[in-house]
Amino acid sequence: MTTTLDAALARMSADIDARFARLLAIPDDPRADLYRAMRHAAIGGGKRLRPLLVGATADLFGVDRDCSGDVALAVEAIHVYSLIHDDLPAMDDDDLRRGKPTVHKAFDEATAILAGDCLHALAFEILADPRTHADPFVRAELVMELARASGPGGMAGGQMMDLVAERSRFDLATVTRLQQMKTGALISVSVELGAILGRVPPEGRRSLHGYAHDLGLAFQIADDLLDAEGDEAVVGKALRKDGEAGKETFLSLLGVDRAREQCRMLVDQAVRHLHGYGAEADVLREVARYVVERDR
Amino acid sequence: MTTTLDAALARMSADIDARFARLLAIPDDPRADLYRAMRHAAIGGGKRLRPLLVGATADLFGVDRDCSGDVALAVEAIHVYSLIHDDLPAMDDDDLRRGKPTVHKAFDEATAILAGDCLHALAFEILADPRTHADPFVRAELVMELARASGPGGMAGGQMMDLVAERSRFDLATVTRLQQMKTGALISVSVELGAILGRVPPEGRRSLHGYAHDLGLAFQIADDLLDAEGDEAVVGKALRKDGEAGKETFLSLLGVDRAREQCRMLVDQAVRHLHGYGAEADVLREVARYVVERDR
Repeated sequence: MTTTLDAALARMSADIDARFARLLAIPDDPRADLYRAMRHAAIGGGKRLRPLLVGATADLFGVDRDCSGDVALAVEAIHVYSLIHDDLPAMDDDDLRRGKPTVHKAFDEATAILAGDCLHALAFEILADPRTHADPFVRAELVMELARASGPGGMAGGQMMDLVAERSRFDLATVTRLQQMKTGALISVSVELGAILGRVPPEGRRSLHGYAHDLGLAFQIADDLLDAEGDEAVVGKALRKDGEAGKETFLSLLGVDRAREQCRMLVDQAVRHLHGYGAEADVLREVARYVVERDR
Repeated sequence: MTTTLDAALARMSADIDARFARLLAIPDDPRADLYRAMRHAAIGGGKRLRPLLVGATADLFGVDRDCSGDVALAVEAIHVYSLIHDDLPAMDDDDLRRGKPTVHKAFDEATAILAGDCLHALAFEILADPRTHADPFVRAELVMELARASGPGGMAGGQMMDLVAERSRFDLATVTRLQQMKTGALISVSVELGAILGRVPPEGRRSLHGYAHDLGLAFQIADDLLDAEGDEAVVGKALRKDGEAGKETFLSLLGVDRAREQCRMLVDQAVRHLHGYGAEADVLREVARYVVERDR
């Protein structure tokens, strides 16, 4: 990880933590545990990769950072809600996340379900709020793109395919589609929302879209490699679960060497999509390289 | 139930069923069960009270019914998602809903969690879609109001208070606040969204807001009365659960007679808020009267 990216991730993490802390001030009423549960999941520990993609893309077009910070917060709220629900006993049944007990372990299952639902609603409330962006056209577009990326045609649909994967034999095309939905959609939309804030018309977003698409797949292959080879103490969650569940992944279908090669190729391709941009896109380039090299 | 309301509810039910059927066409891929689960919960059986409130309020201002139908669909999607999650074993643990097995019974818990999450995302995708309304300002306002009403300051926050109610002794003020959030917020916002579609400025929405507020509380007291006195076969879900859980409700705090009186008083008050409207508001008036008289 290089210094520029280090600094950018550290700045974004501090910013997102501060924004979550303001958004989730604990009320003095019977909902206190609900807010504590949201804070437990949302504040501290995350890589904040999606917020950085929103912010770094918006930076390309000189978007006000307070505005892109709010949009980054909304994307991270969706990501955190999905982690809370995915960790539930009925889903992946995980006890550890970002090195801390998962929400249903630290609180209880009902609180975890509601904490996820609340972060989900808050994400759209933030995007639709006039204080986030003055132009209602931009706000409505942000909402529509994030809702699409997180719903049955995106993240949640991919999660459903992932559940089915435990009892089916998926081929490489299906695994690729699954991962593009489950992980890729939210990574892609992070770049997309940054471009919307930058008022880039849809036809001008093609190179950014290509970058995000390749990055999303590379990210997932890297995740599979980490699941197989990573150190639980560093990664901060239970590993080797895919193999135990007998799920087909990029790794089981390609093998370690070809998977690693594929990941590197996708990262190179992602970076090439940015050839039209100068040094202002260096953070995006470094994010792509970080994806192959990361250890958590 | 009078004939006008009968007809309006029947028309709205058929319309909402048809819209859900189009929205939730089952894909030929591993997500098929996710869509089946959403259809199981969303199509058929509901009273469609919230959609009717959206539609009847929008009708006051001559709003295009295709447009108000989409907005009504979004509100009902939020309502259905909340029912799916509330019925989960970790929450109210219900086996029966609208006379059918609950989603986690008919499918499984993981599918139920995801089906709820997907309907949640779809609601906001519908509201933000340019095909729902041409004006982005209206779209963004619809999203913001529905997100507020369903998040931690509304429905989901009220559900959290309801969970805490099982292990606390709430007074009448707290039970009132709980119910205003848990049930009232979504009923109120249904009227609010109809008024937004009618381009009623916030200051002109006061009487409608008063109507919706009183209606929401009356609805919940009627629900408590049904829980204590209703027929499970007619209501279509398990009853007498509040008493068994030892939860304070309007009924436990006021007693049956005063609760019924309070409910009637709220309905009268709700209707009085509509004095500025003529016969065009008759459906809204009948909805209010239906709330005290309903048997399911």
